[in-house]
Amino acid sequence: MENSEQLHKIRHSLAHIMAAAIQKIKPEASFGVGPAIDNGFYYDFLVEENFTEAELKAIEKEMRSIINQKLPFEQENWPIDEAIKYFESKNQKFKVELLNDLKTKGTTAVADAGDDDLAKGSEGEVKEVSIYKTGDFVDLCRGPHVENTSEIQADCFKLNKTSGAYWRGKEENPQMQRVYGLAFENKTELNDYLQMLVEAEKRDHRKLGQELDLFVFSDLVGPGLPMYTPRGTVIINQLKEVLNEIGRDNDMESVSIPHLAKIDLYKTSGHAEKFEAELFEVKSHYNQEFVLKPVNCPHHTQIYSSRPRSYKDLPIRYTEQTMQYRDEKPGQIGGLQRTRGFTVDDGHTFCTVDQIQEEADLIAEVIKKFYQNLGLWGDHWVSLSVRDPKTPESYIGDPDDWQLAEEMLQKVSDDRGLGAKRMEGEAALYGPKLDFMFKDALSRETQLATIQLDFAMPKRFELTYTDKDGSDKSPVMIHRAILGSFERFMMLLIEHFAGAFPLWLAPEQVRIIPVSDKFNEYAKSVHEKLYKEDVRVKLDDDSESLGKRIRTAEKLKVPMIIVVGEKEQDSNSVAIRRHGVGDEGSKDLDEAVNSILEEISTRKV
Amino acid sequence: MENSEQLHKIRHSLAHIMAAAIQKIKPEASFGVGPAIDNGFYYDFLVEENFTEAELKAIEKEMRSIINQKLPFEQENWPIDEAIKYFESKNQKFKVELLNDLKTKGTTAVADAGDDDLAKGSEGEVKEVSIYKTGDFVDLCRGPHVENTSEIQADCFKLNKTSGAYWRGKEENPQMQRVYGLAFENKTELNDYLQMLVEAEKRDHRKLGQELDLFVFSDLVGPGLPMYTPRGTVIINQLKEVLNEIGRDNDMESVSIPHLAKIDLYKTSGHAEKFEAELFEVKSHYNQEFVLKPVNCPHHTQIYSSRPRSYKDLPIRYTEQTMQYRDEKPGQIGGLQRTRGFTVDDGHTFCTVDQIQEEADLIAEVIKKFYQNLGLWGDHWVSLSVRDPKTPESYIGDPDDWQLAEEMLQKVSDDRGLGAKRMEGEAALYGPKLDFMFKDALSRETQLATIQLDFAMPKRFELTYTDKDGSDKSPVMIHRAILGSFERFMMLLIEHFAGAFPLWLAPEQVRIIPVSDKFNEYAKSVHEKLYKEDVRVKLDDDSESLGKRIRTAEKLKVPMIIVVGEKEQDSNSVAIRRHGVGDEGSKDLDEAVNSILEEISTRKV
Repeated sequence: MENSEQLHKIRHSLAHIMAAAIQKIKPEASFGVGPAIDNGFYYDFLVEENFTEAELKAIEKEMRSIINQKLPFEQENWPIDEAIKYFESKNQKFKVELLNDLKTKGTTAVADAGDDDLAKGSEGEVKEVSIYKTGDFVDLCRGPHVENTSEIQADCFKLNKTSGAYWRGKEENPQMQRVYGLAFENKTELNDYLQMLVEAEKRDHRKLGQELDLFVFSDLVGPGLPMYTPRGTVIINQLKEVLNEIGRDNDMESVSIPHLAKIDLYKTSGHAEKFEAELFEVKSHYNQEFVLKPVNCPHHTQIYSSRPRSYKDLPIRYTEQTMQYRDEKPGQIGGLQRTRGFTVDDGHTFCTVDQIQEEADLIAEVIKKFYQNLGLWGDHWVSLSVRDPKTPESYIGDPDDWQLAEEMLQKVSDDRGLGAKRMEGEAALYGPKLDFMFKDALSRETQLATIQLDFAMPKRFELTYTDKDGSDKSPVMIHRAILGSFERFMMLLIEHFAGAFPLWLAPEQVRIIPVSDKFNEYAKSVHEKLYKEDVRVKLDDDSESLGKRIRTAEKLKVPMIIVVGEKEQDSNSVAIRRHGVGDEGSKDLDEAVNSILEEISTRKV
Repeated sequence: MENSEQLHKIRHSLAHIMAAAIQKIKPEASFGVGPAIDNGFYYDFLVEENFTEAELKAIEKEMRSIINQKLPFEQENWPIDEAIKYFESKNQKFKVELLNDLKTKGTTAVADAGDDDLAKGSEGEVKEVSIYKTGDFVDLCRGPHVENTSEIQADCFKLNKTSGAYWRGKEENPQMQRVYGLAFENKTELNDYLQMLVEAEKRDHRKLGQELDLFVFSDLVGPGLPMYTPRGTVIINQLKEVLNEIGRDNDMESVSIPHLAKIDLYKTSGHAEKFEAELFEVKSHYNQEFVLKPVNCPHHTQIYSSRPRSYKDLPIRYTEQTMQYRDEKPGQIGGLQRTRGFTVDDGHTFCTVDQIQEEADLIAEVIKKFYQNLGLWGDHWVSLSVRDPKTPESYIGDPDDWQLAEEMLQKVSDDRGLGAKRMEGEAALYGPKLDFMFKDALSRETQLATIQLDFAMPKRFELTYTDKDGSDKSPVMIHRAILGSFERFMMLLIEHFAGAFPLWLAPEQVRIIPVSDKFNEYAKSVHEKLYKEDVRVKLDDDSESLGKRIRTAEKLKVPMIIVVGEKEQDSNSVAIRRHGVGDEGSKDLDEAVNSILEEISTRKV
């Protein structure tokens, strides 16, 4: 729906309508460009003073008035010199600049203006340009637009924010004011989106991370380098435990590597070139060039190659949960979404070509189980990236092996009903892959799990195994991740659960609150009982009122509060209150302990 | 004994006797210096060709002949010019060079010659030098020596190796041949030492690390950066589990930090200065100065300071098992003894001054339990480093707090019978400490566990807590390590157990070997039973002979081999063979499984 052509037309037309409104309200404004974007549109203006809240309201009102006039959008083709003359007469210097560039350098020269609809079309010098007219507003534009403003519902949009933006994205150019609007087909959809934004803000992992004391940043440590508090580390460690169990159950072997290596390692692997802009160089006093590892696979090849391997040893499955470092742009860093240090659950399987299907299937099974257990399976889709059939020769590796590998991944998808969408030409140079895409709380897609075949790296590192016939062969390498990076996954989990983690994952699982200090001893005995069973339990026997203590626990979203008073003490029972649910009544103490332990050990969500 | 004065005299005298023997066998040799060292002595000679094995034997023989002549060591003081003239006449250019330096620049000028006995004495120009005569061998030397070679037993020494050594340690000087001898008071002690060397070589962690496939190095990754194989990682992870249990049982909270930080963090902490030569600088593309963390405490202060703390929150105990990096000199790196990346079990407690004793006691208890469980407790000693009582004003922190803290640590030692040796003046500027020193397989002392008070760092980072009276106070920080670095501890464990790890710690715990393929099915069922119980078990049903398969397992020092044949299959039992013990006879299968699980869960050594 959001991607429909009509919606795009509506959004793009609203950008023109906003410009028309501003032309009326602020005739002196110079116009930049105004494209449709995800969820709406924007337009850049050069104005003396930034628009106030009240002015934005006035602009919205004027826009609705234009819409209600049922004006047509009329397209005309003008000789370029005529267009230049027209916009010169209107003092629209930015339009004139773009037209001159189009005239002398062609469409590619205006790609930096930030409007795709402007830059489309043939390369080379432009002789004639497309113009759209709406009432007395005339804009340089290739369209497409709605035929008439009557196609737009007057309450389907809302101007939601402004920001500064340099003309053509360059700091040396004038800073313009960018006015953003949200726009949908109708008011209901707009409201749904606004509601979602409110919800997303409540779930924002940066906000909850602070409120729930899960992770912190420090100016002294530096941007993009999160530290996990004890409460956040509990969650990380619980996830690691799940992955470790998966590893053990599937004969994956943990290995352990350092966080730096000589640059030579990455020259051999090819990452020195691929990650050039993201590599952190490490300077030694002893004339040796190191870098922080941007990936783990090259290290793992070195463990593989540390001794001779036979076909009998394969498959070898190394796994590790380890931090890697990439020098991300300061402007792109934020919360746990993009960090400079991130922990990956990385796995590398070395196997024969014949073993690919079984190994990929094993990993797909593990991925499914992992996400099912967290209640995340289902809200995802899978892509199968294969070669471009037109250029099979441009990929590294034996074409027969490629053919077989692609078939095997397809079969894994078919057998498991993954319904993988076949993406031709999307395979990496070194192998095909299955990616698992999930949606975050803002409905943004994130790739989390992956199964990636690699014919190239084993050859680059000259990895071999001795086959049955005594000959040396090159193994295939499978890169795999289950949850991807712990940072991004943590963000997703925080936002998914809105901070109200299920019992097994919660930093603090149970809080015991005696109704008054007369019951502190009994409360302590309940605490003791759970503590001995490794439950993450706390006792709040502070002198604060019962209500205040319950609110404190609720604020921390402790999943279970156990309140004990006279009745509970006398009957050796506990009153249970669930976060987000409320009172669940009383339960016999032993029964309660058993059901808590059961809920934790089964990792109920 | 080894440190006794007489033994030092014997070793030093043997250096002269060796020189006397060489003077007789190779009269053209120029002599450098020849001091006593740990376990023996050496002497440097400039000779045309390096000594052969046969020549060393001949030198040994001549030395014994000299000893048997019962020659006196006669000391004389010569005017320095007379000494110069004498050594010139003997073509001993190095002695002449030293004498000239002594004459014009004094004793400090010859400190680089590598002979403490030579450089001792007053500074300033030297007018007279001490000479020792043994038979017709005359040497420049301050002594002391034995009175007569009869004090030396002719079979108490052995020339054990030669190496190259630059004159006065400078590469631009001639390279001399250094001949080493081992020497003890008698033959028995010499043999004990030689036996110990043989044993140590067998236990060498570098050799065993390779043979048992525990860790590897790679030229592409770089020196000092070990990688743990799956087998080595098992051991690391078992140790981490023990530490995690300890953490949980003692309310220590795990946190998680990245491996780099802005240099500012270490400027504030003081480590930028202290570790200047060992800091790995990290270069970002974005004009930010980072370094790899050489320690973890500054990061942990940032978690502490991320929210307000009250006296009610203290003590706060953060723990973490994390890698840190120091740019060690390439020449000093070797095996796991000294690495550039190492994983520490680091802990930081933030508490009030009043809580120091209880907190230190808790850590001391934990340390004791940890080493007791590994059978290492007892072979250690504890030092208590306190202020120099003469300069109490030169330490950071309130003198009353210091006084109290030293008393508290002393009390921990007294209460627990640690018998800590009080080391006055050994405290760090920022606080007193308890160190736990253990011996490795070569009887070298290593500091592993530590409890270190710190009054300074909380102030540097302006850490506070709100006290009962509402005032802001500075907490005390306790740095603690239980096993120190995993790398050094791994080395110690490998050498301590000579690679034959106890069942709970062994990478592979049990290997099942059917006597022939008729019993493969039964062997598989035994394997299955143990595997389901999380025992690290392997089945070897290869077509190799039984003997060969047992030898393969023995070579890997698998602690338990289970052999199954007709008898075992018929009676549902297993035949158990223990590494280093041999056959333990047959056992009912269920009984065997139970006793294996019991041995693992109790971590029997």
